[in-house]
Amino acid sequence: MANQGKSRQPKYQRIADALKSAIEAGEYGPGDRLPGENDLMATYEVARMTARQAIGVLQSEGLAEARKGAGVFVRDFRPLRRQGIKRLSQEQWGNGRSIWAADIDGRTLEVDQVTVTEQSAPERIAHVLDLQTGDAVCMRSRRFVLDGKPVLLATSYLPADLVAGSPITQKDTGPGGIYARLGELGHKPVHFREEIRSRMPSQDEADTLQLTMGTPVILVCRTAFAAGGHPVEVNEMTLDSASYVLEYAFDA
Amino acid sequence: MANQGKSRQPKYQRIADALKSAIEAGEYGPGDRLPGENDLMATYEVARMTARQAIGVLQSEGLAEARKGAGVFVRDFRPLRRQGIKRLSQEQWGNGRSIWAADIDGRTLEVDQVTVTEQSAPERIAHVLDLQTGDAVCMRSRRFVLDGKPVLLATSYLPADLVAGSPITQKDTGPGGIYARLGELGHKPVHFREEIRSRMPSQDEADTLQLTMGTPVILVCRTAFAAGGHPVEVNEMTLDSASYVLEYAFDA
Repeated sequence: MANQGKSRQPKYQRIADALKSAIEAGEYGPGDRLPGENDLMATYEVARMTARQAIGVLQSEGLAEARKGAGVFVRDFRPLRRQGIKRLSQEQWGNGRSIWAADIDGRTLEVDQVTVTEQSAPERIAHVLDLQTGDAVCMRSRRFVLDGKPVLLATSYLPADLVAGSPITQKDTGPGGIYARLGELGHKPVHFREEIRSRMPSQDEADTLQLTMGTPVILVCRTAFAAGGHPVEVNEMTLDSASYVLEYAFDA
Repeated sequence: MANQGKSRQPKYQRIADALKSAIEAGEYGPGDRLPGENDLMATYEVARMTARQAIGVLQSEGLAEARKGAGVFVRDFRPLRRQGIKRLSQEQWGNGRSIWAADIDGRTLEVDQVTVTEQSAPERIAHVLDLQTGDAVCMRSRRFVLDGKPVLLATSYLPADLVAGSPITQKDTGPGGIYARLGELGHKPVHFREEIRSRMPSQDEADTLQLTMGTPVILVCRTAFAAGGHPVEVNEMTLDSASYVLEYAFDA
């Protein structure tokens, strides 16, 4: 009778709880290898399926990640810090530095899978950019890869009329990127809005960002406004939540 | 041979894709009931387990949610909009209005499970509040419930010395809340930092927020600073990602 309360939880859940407590207590640190199925079977005298389920709980809560052939490890959360305000201030992009420079602290952030196309504005984009559905937009997609791991997908939309013939329509937008070029075109962004949500990834997103099980994505939709409140760019970003902390600082 | 490429995907994945396309095309709108296991079995001539797996994909991606005894429905994303900057400006809390008033647009947001205790500062909190680990802090926990659905858990920590004897140590902090009281105590918050990340919930969090499958949480850690850069409050918030969009707006 004494352990009846305890027995109410399924066995795998109790093993998962024990592992979680050990992680919280620092017994297993970030990046450490956790006991495998065989270890758990021996320690707790349970069947392989039970051991596997216990590990599955930690994976689906994003506390642990499996590496092929190597075992299951405590997730190492060493995130990029993305500073919403400081990062976009003119000091950053006004003098030709990338808006991403503030993020990487000496780690190597590479951009790949760059595509630039002209196409009809999807309805939601047309709505934000004050266009008619179907008006032409310049669409720029790219992926950011940190130390070999994809961490962010970004797709920018700009009114095609506004950027026609400028380097914004080229793969390489030049020093300072899109915002410096918009400034040269007389449409300097002076105000930004970022909207943030989170959800589980689609299979495509999970593949492209190489997400492990139990990893949500953070969606950031940034709108850049030029003087007079004219929207000049919408940037839809999809972030690996295990790779990012977003930071916003502001005065009262 | 013609459909060999198509056959490569497991059947349940192809059914899930078809349902997703139908949702994207607007064939099933937010809150609409999706075909059940029996419907899918008949339409696609598959076994119950295959139909169940297809629905499971939509659930785990957060596109659909099961309601007990009623079926599976397209998730209705009608989020609260939480404005990080406008919401915390002095106009909001300087004259006695709740900082939450900006969020709810006429819907009913209730606070429950309020607890106020004095305890030793956990290490991470002591670090941010410039205290020694173990120094006393006033800890205020509460849950926010919108139209009967819990949407946010918040736990604030304030240096116990700073708030001793004030209404901040009571369940009801009075009009304008913690920040108005801090002002009266001579520690008016003038600067805020919010740090945001996302992960899957623990079982406890999923229970307390009544999260459906495939719903991550958003973590917001807000630090309030008084003049001179003194940190006066840390507020750790856990948000139902299906209920919130966070918004930050700022000038370049």
